Amino acid sequence: MSLIVQKYGGTSVGSPEKIKAVAEQVLDYRSKGHQMVVVLSAMSGETDRLISLANSVQEQPDTREMDVLLSTGEQVTISLFAMAVKAAGFDAISFLGDQVKILTSSMHTKARIESVDTDKVKKHLAQGKIVVIAGFQGVDENGDITTLGRGGSDTTAVALAATLEADQCEIFTDVEGVFTTDPNVCASARKIDRISYDEMLELASLGAKVLDIRSVGLAKRYKVPLHVRSTFVDTEGTWVVEEDKAMESMLVSGVTYNKNEARITITKVPDNPGIASKIFMPISDAGIVVDMIIQNTRAGDLTDMTFTVPRTDFKKAMELVEKIAADIGAENVSGADNIAKVSIVGVGMRNNSGIAATMFHVLANEGINIMMISTSEIKVSCVIEEKYTELAIRALHDAFALERVDIQ
Amino acid sequence: MSLIVQKYGGTSVGSPEKIKAVAEQVLDYRSKGHQMVVVLSAMSGETDRLISLANSVQEQPDTREMDVLLSTGEQVTISLFAMAVKAAGFDAISFLGDQVKILTSSMHTKARIESVDTDKVKKHLAQGKIVVIAGFQGVDENGDITTLGRGGSDTTAVALAATLEADQCEIFTDVEGVFTTDPNVCASARKIDRISYDEMLELASLGAKVLDIRSVGLAKRYKVPLHVRSTFVDTEGTWVVEEDKAMESMLVSGVTYNKNEARITITKVPDNPGIASKIFMPISDAGIVVDMIIQNTRAGDLTDMTFTVPRTDFKKAMELVEKIAADIGAENVSGADNIAKVSIVGVGMRNNSGIAATMFHVLANEGINIMMISTSEIKVSCVIEEKYTELAIRALHDAFALERVDIQ
Repeated sequence: MSLIVQKYGGTSVGSPEKIKAVAEQVLDYRSKGHQMVVVLSAMSGETDRLISLANSVQEQPDTREMDVLLSTGEQVTISLFAMAVKAAGFDAISFLGDQVKILTSSMHTKARIESVDTDKVKKHLAQGKIVVIAGFQGVDENGDITTLGRGGSDTTAVALAATLEADQCEIFTDVEGVFTTDPNVCASARKIDRISYDEMLELASLGAKVLDIRSVGLAKRYKVPLHVRSTFVDTEGTWVVEEDKAMESMLVSGVTYNKNEARITITKVPDNPGIASKIFMPISDAGIVVDMIIQNTRAGDLTDMTFTVPRTDFKKAMELVEKIAADIGAENVSGADNIAKVSIVGVGMRNNSGIAATMFHVLANEGINIMMISTSEIKVSCVIEEKYTELAIRALHDAFALERVDIQ
Repeated sequence: MSLIVQKYGGTSVGSPEKIKAVAEQVLDYRSKGHQMVVVLSAMSGETDRLISLANSVQEQPDTREMDVLLSTGEQVTISLFAMAVKAAGFDAISFLGDQVKILTSSMHTKARIESVDTDKVKKHLAQGKIVVIAGFQGVDENGDITTLGRGGSDTTAVALAATLEADQCEIFTDVEGVFTTDPNVCASARKIDRISYDEMLELASLGAKVLDIRSVGLAKRYKVPLHVRSTFVDTEGTWVVEEDKAMESMLVSGVTYNKNEARITITKVPDNPGIASKIFMPISDAGIVVDMIIQNTRAGDLTDMTFTVPRTDFKKAMELVEKIAADIGAENVSGADNIAKVSIVGVGMRNNSGIAATMFHVLANEGINIMMISTSEIKVSCVIEEKYTELAIRALHDAFALERVDIQ
């Protein structure tokens, strides 16, 4: 008998019928003797409906009140789910974030989980109940409702699995698992059977949407085996687990891309100490998150600075940077929002030099110009022109033979 | 400067536009220096939507989970309302039933308020904020969400007004106040300016829907001046207050009716001690609420028993009573669901004999047969055939001259 935490996303519980189907599935597990904790998102479309209500009342909705509003989405699903289990003749009980004391920071709409009090959960599990918990929400030390931001329900599930010392945490979603790359772009994309926490962290941060990055970080920290799989197809998905020898034998585990960024370049910046902070402090103060930063030194105490920002902030950032450039005496500002970041990820890189070189070679062979490069121990990212994204993905997927059978 | 508690019903906050309009109205009060506590219901239609979701998942929805579900309705309105106040440049904060510790019994879907912890409310009022509180909901001692049943938001408002020792509690609704009778039935129906708690209690229990009866009882107990008025028309409504001399000078304050009951008669019941309990215990055990009970003694230790039940329970009650009648050796069971209860209410009755006789005379003059009579110190109710309801109401309204100018 295991203790299993399962999380179902919005499309999995998008209607009363789907809720009933998920309840049946959970009862299948229960009937095999497992203790079941189920974490649910809001019904698909509900969060957007609530956001639009808020926007019709206040232009920039107050974040504390936004959390009071948004948290109703999960509250509806957990109660309906508990009813569905009871309708099937089994016992269930629902809990909100504050009822199982998912204590978070007070940063409304993007709070971080600080602790979870599992006493109630354990008590009701011991009574044989299926315990149903609202994802995405918590409570701060003032007793105010908080929400965790996009993908927050994944984090709720992993936090519960960690504190309950669950045997596994299953994330049910609308795809079959983590793929070597986007199957919509590359027909030979293959579902990965097992991947390390570190690789998954890189993939999540580089654009793979299947798992919220905070949940992966938490799973790594508490060594929670994560199983990402489809609600609608009954096959094994992807296990996100601790790194092992077999993983290292793969040079590259996945290829990913991100089209949500824009590039800004400031040329001929006088290269004084503190110049980076003069550029990036005002950008940060404006709430704009900078991703990659590249600095190239020129002759004569001049430097060029290139960085990426979210595409939605591009216009705002350009205006700001033009002012900054004038202040610091830089020569020119240019920018482009038709860029893409293409990345390869794999723990095998650690012990294999030449992987980055292979990537550059593959892109060059396709006639794709690389604008920016950024590397970590287990990934290489290249910024290229957006129109070459699919071409680059397919070429890299081929070059690293990712369509081949997975490690086991 | 007063402390005012205001409650707005579902039709008053039925859309973002209406929520903004109500926020403006509350800010008008605030700008006059009053401290404002606002209690809100769910947007009109929302509770029904949620109930229908529940019914599509579980035939008889679990009541604990039903409360988790239904309480989201008010949660949505309070957050939107607080946003609307903030959008208008003032400060507001919303609280759920459990956040201001509206402690209730654990009787889900019809819990009773036991206490209210007003510390948070007072603190935020002192900071000049408009405090917005979810009506209809509370929390029991296990930390489970409870709801108070239909009309529960009125009770929330009065409970807050009582514990905060507010100067007044205003119930904003879609009618202009309490009328001498239903204006849809009787064109000369007049808005009552002032009415006593006791009269309002009788009117509410006899079918007047404008105020929840529990809220009136609570207002009476804590001497909270209640003001029932329209959200949409800016005129004084009806004050529900302590009885005074002027009220006693009115013989009758209002005429009301109720078409939601059905009559059951058991004839020739052997009149032994304990016979009433043999009849009514099983009915009560079946969850059927009996309203009026009339017993007529016949010759020869036989008695006839007539009583009323909710019309929705009529069929179930008839089946049950036929079995009981056979068990106890009664001769016959008959019933009818085409009845109505017509009542007159007034504290003036206490010191005036002959009011009941006048009522019987008026009905007789119209050729209306009285099937059952029930009286209290300040009301007389007659059960008649349903088709005569409107005729009876108009005749009684005329006979007691209720169209005349109100006391002041």
